[in-house]
Parts: sequence; structure tokens; C-alpha cells
Amino acid sequence: MRAYLDHNATMPLRTEARAAMVAAMDVIGNPSSVHAEGRAAKALIERARAQIAATMGAEEADVVFTSGATEAAGLALAGRDLRGSRVEHDAVASWVRSDLPVDAQGQVTVTDPGGATLQWANSETGVVQDLPQDLAVSDMTQGFGKLPCDFTASGVRMALISAHKLGGPKGIGALVLRRGQEVPAQIRGGGQEMGRRSGTENLIGIAGFAAAAEAATRDLLGGRWDEVAHLRDLLEEALAAASSPTIFIGKDVRRLPNTSCIMTPGWRGETQVMQMDLAGYAVSAGSACSSGKVRASAVLRAMGHNDTEAASAIRVSLGLETSREDVLRFADAWIAKMKKHVMRAA
Amino acid sequence: MRAYLDHNATMPLRTEARAAMVAAMDVIGNPSSVHAEGRAAKALIERARAQIAATMGAEEADVVFTSGATEAAGLALAGRDLRGSRVEHDAVASWVRSDLPVDAQGQVTVTDPGGATLQWANSETGVVQDLPQDLAVSDMTQGFGKLPCDFTASGVRMALISAHKLGGPKGIGALVLRRGQEVPAQIRGGGQEMGRRSGTENLIGIAGFAAAAEAATRDLLGGRWDEVAHLRDLLEEALAAASSPTIFIGKDVRRLPNTSCIMTPGWRGETQVMQMDLAGYAVSAGSACSSGKVRASAVLRAMGHNDTEAASAIRVSLGLETSREDVLRFADAWIAKMKKHVMRAA
Repeated sequence: MRAYLDHNATMPLRTEARAAMVAAMDVIGNPSSVHAEGRAAKALIERARAQIAATMGAEEADVVFTSGATEAAGLALAGRDLRGSRVEHDAVASWVRSDLPVDAQGQVTVTDPGGATLQWANSETGVVQDLPQDLAVSDMTQGFGKLPCDFTASGVRMALISAHKLGGPKGIGALVLRRGQEVPAQIRGGGQEMGRRSGTENLIGIAGFAAAAEAATRDLLGGRWDEVAHLRDLLEEALAAASSPTIFIGKDVRRLPNTSCIMTPGWRGETQVMQMDLAGYAVSAGSACSSGKVRASAVLRAMGHNDTEAASAIRVSLGLETSREDVLRFADAWIAKMKKHVMRAA
Repeated sequence: MRAYLDHNATMPLRTEARAAMVAAMDVIGNPSSVHAEGRAAKALIERARAQIAATMGAEEADVVFTSGATEAAGLALAGRDLRGSRVEHDAVASWVRSDLPVDAQGQVTVTDPGGATLQWANSETGVVQDLPQDLAVSDMTQGFGKLPCDFTASGVRMALISAHKLGGPKGIGALVLRRGQEVPAQIRGGGQEMGRRSGTENLIGIAGFAAAAEAATRDLLGGRWDEVAHLRDLLEEALAAASSPTIFIGKDVRRLPNTSCIMTPGWRGETQVMQMDLAGYAVSAGSACSSGKVRASAVLRAMGHNDTEAASAIRVSLGLETSREDVLRFADAWIAKMKKHVMRAA
């Protein structure tokens, strides 16, 4: 039986999201229409907006629905010349000067929060950043749903979030704006989303996003991710016990509960991913990029690793449905391959 | 029982789209991931892309998935300074010089197709344009699914299409590019869609779009819209027989089979929409805009009508599930209200 261990790339759809989406399929109106069918569609969106704001502690904020965190990044960042770091996702890095210092543990120093963007948690390593007050923009995509979130207390001015990273559907996300913050529209037309983002709303996706965010918050408060962190630690102990040359990136700092970035210098991550895929385990190497090719991780290079090291890592990211057995079977399979690799390399 | 007669605003979700979306909910991978789960997701998208290209006769074209026709419009038009006309949708008008001449029948004269954009069919009046060869951009949103489409033969270089106008979900659409045409990416990041549009793909929406496009094509070839055109003509005859001062816009030129734009000078469209909504019929006035307010139609003004006239129209747009009874009941209800209006105004 296959085990899906790539939850930071995308999570399976939650049951609650699925049910909300199927229900929304019966809402036939266009949210911009003034008749009863239109008003029902509009009401669904506004209810979802309030649910998402509540789950992230952002009642004093505006939630602007977008087609995902990538679009939200452009909306927040384009034309602003903010500073970022080399551990940011490409969707953020495309719009910023990537010159903020990153230390060996992946932690970023921000001197001017009002002119900077900083991710909450890194998708590849799971390393969590302390967000300074009045930070201009934070990519909260990987943290939201896995870490307790209080947007208002964080002092962040704008945040990017995505549904599919917490068990909602792909293709829907949001830009969350602290009340009073504004952005110029990138996608123009009918003036939806209070003029900030035009286009008929992704009604079914929005319904799924809100349901997933509520379910994610319930699981978080219920301590479910603490159990996942325990499994992640179990995995790392099992691999370490095989006395390989393996390093667990970010192990000494605060990380996401589900993420292990496993570097075995000289054994290409790309090769590991393919071998584990054939053995029945979905994991990733570096960042997934659309071409299907795997590059040496820019994140690991930013943390001071050389190209060979940075190309020798895999990311294992667990989910709520991951079992102890999945983790132990994966560890056995990986250790067997690692030993073969060491023998061949010797 | 209510009758939904606003299919140009958005169509109810087709059964086939619903089934494809529910099936896609079980596809858990990220299309950018290289493992089996990722490849399955990628395969779903590529299959959908081919289906959509086939249904619009665009095998020799590239289909770039976007969050809808509005986003596709920006992708096709931003920074190009093309010429358009005042009958275009706001999503197009936002990016062009609106100075192409429009005649009293709503038809647009294009002198330089390579520097112009022209819609295929108007959402408010249903008026269909003859598209000149080598037209730079066409908004095909309202025509695709209701009119026979041969993108390759049309000679259009780029077309905008939307799923929810043909019975797919809201929040997914595409820019269709004749092979060899290019656009600079607006949404940047991971480089999805061959670098033309970044962001994790709306997998469930894409599945629904393709299934809806196939079902729409089957219905079109099966003559279902001819039946709808017959009902639309029946509606207009019934209203005309009430000898009101009503004008049917675009009646003498080629129109969409389902659309009737009904102008009754002096009786505000906004009022008619509310009265008909209370009576159990969903119709629209002018273009729906996100604020929920109804403006005097820019399209009707472009056709030479004054503000009072342009504010006195409603659009009735029928769907495949509209019955003869729906149409006749609507006609009775509308005539009764119209007579009251005439008495009050007298």
C-alpha cells in the first residue's frame, strides 16, 4: 500500500471540504447578480470569508479571495520593491530583492519589517520564523493550519494563504489585509472583492477553503499535529539509528510539526525520490517546480550548503492520516536504499 | 416554482461537470510533483487541456488555464494598447482603447484586426460579431458552448473562455493561444502552464471545465440550442403581442440562441428585475456588477440609446433546462407588471 508523505506539496482534500464543495454545487447564481439566486451565492462567499478570518484570528482584517497564494503574492508584492530572503518560495521571490541574511539554521534577520517580506514557515525545511511586528508581507501558506495563528496579534500587515496546504482544494487562496491596508488591483474588470480582484468568484473552491480551514483549526486545537510531530521525531530517530551520514535540517530550531528535511551528502535527492516512489512512498526533493525537474535547493544553499549537499536532500512531510506504520515502513525502505547507495559509492 | 432565466450571468453546473469534479477530488497529488500522485494529477490536467482544445477546434493552439476569463483578459491584453469597442465586457474594456465604432445593431467595425479585440457574442444583447481573420484577441466567453466554434478556422490569435458560462464551475477559464503566439506572465512563481501562468492548478475546476465543454459540444451538435432559440422567439412573440412599447434589441441581426434583451423605455430595468425576482424569475438588467448596483447599460448606450432607454432594459437568457412553461409563465407575469407600470405612468 502506498504512503503519501508529501503533505507540504499539497494535502488530500478533507472530508469537510468535500462535503461543502458538493453542497455549493447546487448554488447556481452568480454572486454579482441581484436576484435571489445571486444573493444566495453572495451569502455563501461572505460566510466563508468570515469563517476564514475567524480561523486565522483576523477578524480585524479583509480577506481577498484569489486563485491561490501565488496570485496573492503578486497582489501583495508587485511594484513594491520589498526585501526578502533566499528561503522564500518562487512566488514571493519573483517580486522582491532577495538580500536579507539567512543563517545556517535557516533563520532570517529582518531589520526593516515595514519594507520586508518574510515567510512564516519554510515549505522545504519546516523552519518557522519569528515574525517581527509591522512586517509588510508574510507568506503564511505553510504555517496556516499547522501552527496556532493569531493574525491580529502578529502585527503582520498582509498575509498570503492557500487552501490546498490545509486540506482544501487547489486553485483558491487569499490575501489577508490588516484593516486599512490597500493594494492596487492586478486582475481588473467587474470590480469583485471590493475592487481589489475582479472575476466571478470560485464559489465551490471558496466553500471548500472555508470548510477546510475550520476543520484544520479544530484539529490543531485538538492536538492532532502534536501526534504528527511525534511520528516525525520517530522517523528521524529511526533514520539516525541507521548511523548514516544523514543530517536533519533545522532540527535544532522551531519547525513545522510534520516536516523532515533529510540530507545525505552525495546521494542525490532526485534519485531518492524516484527510488522511494517505486517503493511506494511519495516524497519530494527540494522544491517541486512545474517542469517536473528537480533543482538543487535554493533554500539549502541559502543556509550555507554547497550545491552537492543542496542536491542531496529529500523532504518528508507527514499528514494527519499518516500512521506509525507508514513512518516505520518508510524508514525501513529508505535505510535499505541508503545502505545500497553507500555500498555502491564505497 | 422559481425559474432561473439568467444563464448568461452563469449557468447551473452540468451533471457531467459535477461527476468529473467529484472524481477529481480523489486525485491527491500536486501536478508539479514528480511522484506517481503528482503524475496522476498532471495527467488529469493534460487530458482536460486536450478535451477543451478539441471542443473548440483549437488543436493547433495552446490552452493556458486561468482563474477565469477576467484573468485571461489581463493576460492577453495588459500593456498592449489594443483597440476595442464599448460593447466589450469590463474585463476587456479595462485594458483597451474603446474607440471602435458600434452601429445601432451592436455590430462593431474593425479596420486593423491585428491591433484590435472583439468579442464573439455580447452577454447583454446576444449580438454575434463576424470575427475578422488575424484578430489579435477575442472574448469568446459567451459564444463558446452556444455557437459552433472552430478556433483554427476563425484565425483568431488569442481567445478568452470561461467554464461557468457553459455549465462548468466558476473560477476557471483559459486563454487560448494560436500556436506561436506568446504572452508575458502576469502571475509569476513556480512556472506552471509552461511559464505563462504560475500557481498550483485548480485541478477540480479544470476537470469540471473539460467535462462541461464536452457536454456542451454534444448538446450543441445535438441541436439543443435550436430548441432554446425557439423558446426565446416564443417569448418575444408573447411579449410583442401584448402591444407594449417594448423593443427587442438586436432582433434583426445574428444573436445567441438563448438571449433576449428587452427594452421598455421609461420602465427601469432595475425595477423590472426586482419585480420579477419577487414573482419567482431570475433575470438581469444591464451588466451585473459586483456592487450589486445596476447601471444604465454601456452596451446599449454604445448602440445609440439614451440613458433613460439604456436603463430600461432587461436581459432574459434561457438555458437548456428552461421549459416552454417557464417561458410562458414568465411572459404572463412580465406582461401583468408591464401593464401596471403603463397604468401608473399614464
